[in-house]
Amino acid sequence: MLETIYEPIQEDLAKVEDLLRLVCEVDPPWLSEPLEHSLINGGKRIRPALVLLSGKFHNYDLNYLLPMTVAIEVLHTATLVHDDTIDNSLIRRGRPTINKVWGNDKAILFGDYLLAKTIELASNTKNVRVLRLVAQALMTISSGELQQAFYAFNQEQTRQQYLERISAKTASLLSLSTESGAILSQAPEELVAALKEYGRNLGIAFQIVDDILDFTGDEAEMGKPIGSDLGEGTLTLPAMLFLERYPDNNPVSRVLRNEGDRQKNMKLAIELVRNSPIIEECYEIASKYCARARRNIANLPANASRQSLEQLAIYVVARKK
Amino acid sequence: MLETIYEPIQEDLAKVEDLLRLVCEVDPPWLSEPLEHSLINGGKRIRPALVLLSGKFHNYDLNYLLPMTVAIEVLHTATLVHDDTIDNSLIRRGRPTINKVWGNDKAILFGDYLLAKTIELASNTKNVRVLRLVAQALMTISSGELQQAFYAFNQEQTRQQYLERISAKTASLLSLSTESGAILSQAPEELVAALKEYGRNLGIAFQIVDDILDFTGDEAEMGKPIGSDLGEGTLTLPAMLFLERYPDNNPVSRVLRNEGDRQKNMKLAIELVRNSPIIEECYEIASKYCARARRNIANLPANASRQSLEQLAIYVVARKK
Repeated sequence: MLETIYEPIQEDLAKVEDLLRLVCEVDPPWLSEPLEHSLINGGKRIRPALVLLSGKFHNYDLNYLLPMTVAIEVLHTATLVHDDTIDNSLIRRGRPTINKVWGNDKAILFGDYLLAKTIELASNTKNVRVLRLVAQALMTISSGELQQAFYAFNQEQTRQQYLERISAKTASLLSLSTESGAILSQAPEELVAALKEYGRNLGIAFQIVDDILDFTGDEAEMGKPIGSDLGEGTLTLPAMLFLERYPDNNPVSRVLRNEGDRQKNMKLAIELVRNSPIIEECYEIASKYCARARRNIANLPANASRQSLEQLAIYVVARKK
Repeated sequence: MLETIYEPIQEDLAKVEDLLRLVCEVDPPWLSEPLEHSLINGGKRIRPALVLLSGKFHNYDLNYLLPMTVAIEVLHTATLVHDDTIDNSLIRRGRPTINKVWGNDKAILFGDYLLAKTIELASNTKNVRVLRLVAQALMTISSGELQQAFYAFNQEQTRQQYLERISAKTASLLSLSTESGAILSQAPEELVAALKEYGRNLGIAFQIVDDILDFTGDEAEMGKPIGSDLGEGTLTLPAMLFLERYPDNNPVSRVLRNEGDRQKNMKLAIELVRNSPIIEECYEIASKYCARARRNIANLPANASRQSLEQLAIYVVARKK
């Protein structure tokens, strides 16, 4: 499905891969090895695709768009490297994480290197406004993650707090992708605002589905263990609704309070959530954000890119990994 | 002594403090508290001073220089926060470190927030060239630290490797300060290059003296434990020369190889190094770089700022903390 969606930008996405490989071509092997390990991974490249598709409504100029696609993918990777280090995650996309292979200390420094590389790449756009947006997105992401860390193992969280949190940690990078693609193609402000908002709504839907898949996904297909959010004390939408619905004697609550047999409670919580009507409810909420995203771009020129963006909003909910 | 050196920019350094306080004024206390803890600390503000002094040779415009002073101080703080987390340091400038107070996970995320803030502040200069230099400085610093991590507890290091390492981890930020100060005052390229080189040499001298003080300093005055580099397996110039001079039965070697009573070997190593002629030798090497730094600016207009920069090169070697 992604192949069809990416059709209008297929050739240029190949250039993104070339540029990512170029980023890995540095001298010392202690730097090139983690770079290749983390950047050349067969990922979906949704963020670069969003930059390119959003650039298709005005002056599509790869001189400015391409550096931005790579900058955002490197930024995304940097946040994953630090996240995995913090969560002590051992596997991602079916491969050992940077912290697993090189240790926490080097993972922190390597993440910093990626953040710096992000800015260097983004500076190739020669656009101070976009550089500022990159900085603000990273501020939003890291303060969102900080908030999550401060609220870990806390059951008293509202749906509003959850939405703010995923808006910060995921949607900000997707809306940066669409907004910067529009800015770098010199689109009028109205179009910039519409695409930014599309990215934000798409991002919220994307993360809700991610949080659903953390309960319902297939471990082999996902390339990471199921139930990892709950294990880290992060209350996501499915767990939150499940707690709301069944407030008494709830295994989710026991996991968060660290009561009883942790392994057993985790297993039970996952089992109960994935087989409950909560999952359907979460999908409905995700679909609502996707519908909003589609409405955001309804007045854009009806070209192949708009069609792809519309399909992407459908894909985000339909995907199984 | 610093007060005299800072004389030409005293009033503007007060504005730097105001701006740093402004950076701390954010809503959630879980963000404002670590900000204040790490940024409002009575530090020497050498990097902001270098930006301002370097801006005094051409169009001194605070609209561009001030955001850069704050950006560099925040960047410096970000690297310290991550360093302390990696080294598990518990005290800095006489106060508990961020990782000590808030834990490693939050320290990583908070450091990321500071890195992002750096770029946002630097974007207020509206100067893409300077933003690019900030990114490259951070790439240099983090890859320098990575190199240090990969070489930890390795005795087979050359003086050249040591110089490269401190050039990356310390001098890069001092030369960024002087170079950006010159660029942001629209100085001609010759002057930019001279001030950049001054900053680099000053930075190397600064770090050599830091490494000496890690052996000879007063714990209370330094606000951190003595011998911490060696404890972390980092071979600095004094330890390196001491190993070269006394290759047999050396306590430095035993610490790096983790042989025997660690505590005892550490104490003996510090005692022997601080009372050896090696210290004088290291000071001579530091002085050589300071002399180079002074030569770098010898042809600059002979104003009060040049005088301050010359005195700063003397201060860097003479300081006791």
